Amino acid sequence: MLMITVIKIGGNIVDDPEALDRFLDQLILVPGPKVLVHGGGKLATKLAADLGIESKMIDGRRVTDEAMLKIVTMTYAGWVNKTIVAKLQQRNANALGLTGADGNLLAAKKRSHVPVDFGFAGDPSPENVNAVFLESLLENKILPVIAPLTHDGKGQLLNTNADTIASLISSALSRREPVRLIFGFEKQGVLHDVLKPDSLLESLLETKMKELISSGKINAGMLPKIHAGFSAKRNGVNTVLIGHAGYVNEILNGTKACTRLEL
Amino acid sequence: MLMITVIKIGGNIVDDPEALDRFLDQLILVPGPKVLVHGGGKLATKLAADLGIESKMIDGRRVTDEAMLKIVTMTYAGWVNKTIVAKLQQRNANALGLTGADGNLLAAKKRSHVPVDFGFAGDPSPENVNAVFLESLLENKILPVIAPLTHDGKGQLLNTNADTIASLISSALSRREPVRLIFGFEKQGVLHDVLKPDSLLESLLETKMKELISSGKINAGMLPKIHAGFSAKRNGVNTVLIGHAGYVNEILNGTKACTRLEL
Repeated sequence: MLMITVIKIGGNIVDDPEALDRFLDQLILVPGPKVLVHGGGKLATKLAADLGIESKMIDGRRVTDEAMLKIVTMTYAGWVNKTIVAKLQQRNANALGLTGADGNLLAAKKRSHVPVDFGFAGDPSPENVNAVFLESLLENKILPVIAPLTHDGKGQLLNTNADTIASLISSALSRREPVRLIFGFEKQGVLHDVLKPDSLLESLLETKMKELISSGKINAGMLPKIHAGFSAKRNGVNTVLIGHAGYVNEILNGTKACTRLEL
Repeated sequence: MLMITVIKIGGNIVDDPEALDRFLDQLILVPGPKVLVHGGGKLATKLAADLGIESKMIDGRRVTDEAMLKIVTMTYAGWVNKTIVAKLQQRNANALGLTGADGNLLAAKKRSHVPVDFGFAGDPSPENVNAVFLESLLENKILPVIAPLTHDGKGQLLNTNADTIASLISSALSRREPVRLIFGFEKQGVLHDVLKPDSLLESLLETKMKELISSGKINAGMLPKIHAGFSAKRNGVNTVLIGHAGYVNEILNGTKACTRLEL
């Protein structure tokens, strides 16, 4: 198979119809087999608020009680996922929406209640990825669109971080095929100094990352992407990039700058 | 391929966790390739009410404006579909949730605004069914679980009747393979007199149906199933049954009574 491209987009793209359309216009230009993983965006928080349900966060991670699981499943797997699938079909890309439960794509263990109870949160492992199923879809020219939910195999859906899913899926596929992973968001990449927009790091070594983190120069929202990205790199993914979602095709063909993670 | 069984369940099963579990326990006993089509249940109406959005119905059909389309997509394709998929995975059935947009399974035309504007409602045709895709899933031992939504190929999701979807899919598959279609609900079948529970019609001829309808002896809620069922029968589906969802396997192996539609 040709090199597989795994693309993750986050909430800021999903929440902004113009940014989403622009991203999808770029996505379909990317050659070869592709997998899209999307985050949830603020729709779940908004729907919860509209229903008078409080969104609880601990250290930037959502606490998923029963009511919230229903809300994230409705928004992530329902509205966000199907909106993207319909928009890709409009662009003649044969998209297929999935959660980890569909086709048993990605099972996970419910996160331990100790020390913090995050509720129905799932932590998947690389061996839980159903790479055979994913490859069979890609061989049939299907573009899998993955919502950030997994299941425990015992009938329970679990809320799961989209960066983690993108990293694990890339890692599992890379055991069989060459894979590149790109985290698309609303900025150019990782900045040397978050206060200086022109300080793009075109290459980020893992040692440098640790230095930037300890000096507080990396935006907290960037950390999950960076950790997931280096994890994918260590697991054999050929290329890991962080860049602007509105230019993914140009980034991948080398005509637009971004941040490349290096071990 | 072995005979394909298409099973449709409606809102009363989807809304009742015990009835749903009982149905799923029976479903996995049905031998051979299977396709499940589910209705939406009352969750969409309840969610709309909780959000202060009015549910408009004309002649028992939902009017789907923009806000309601979001709600039905969240509930049908999100919560209901993924709950069923996770519960089937728990039972070692390799379920995969789909809308008509996923894999371009089922495109539809937005219903005309004249004489009544039903909003984002889709009317699919038999030639819109992607039977090749569906068969490739069945050949890979996947159990497709279909939510009652289609798309127009131009990026628009459309609310679509689940009985219609089950009928069209059965009809399309029957051009290639033998197919049986069963509508599972909370009763034994079609009654000769809706007021007499012991008046089950084990066989229902199309002529008899017209007689029962004109004399008002058929429950209005039964009409979409009956019309969709006879349409499937006319389109070549081998067997069309209406029966209790909690006994689908026994109905299919002939040990439990139901109503069989006959031309």
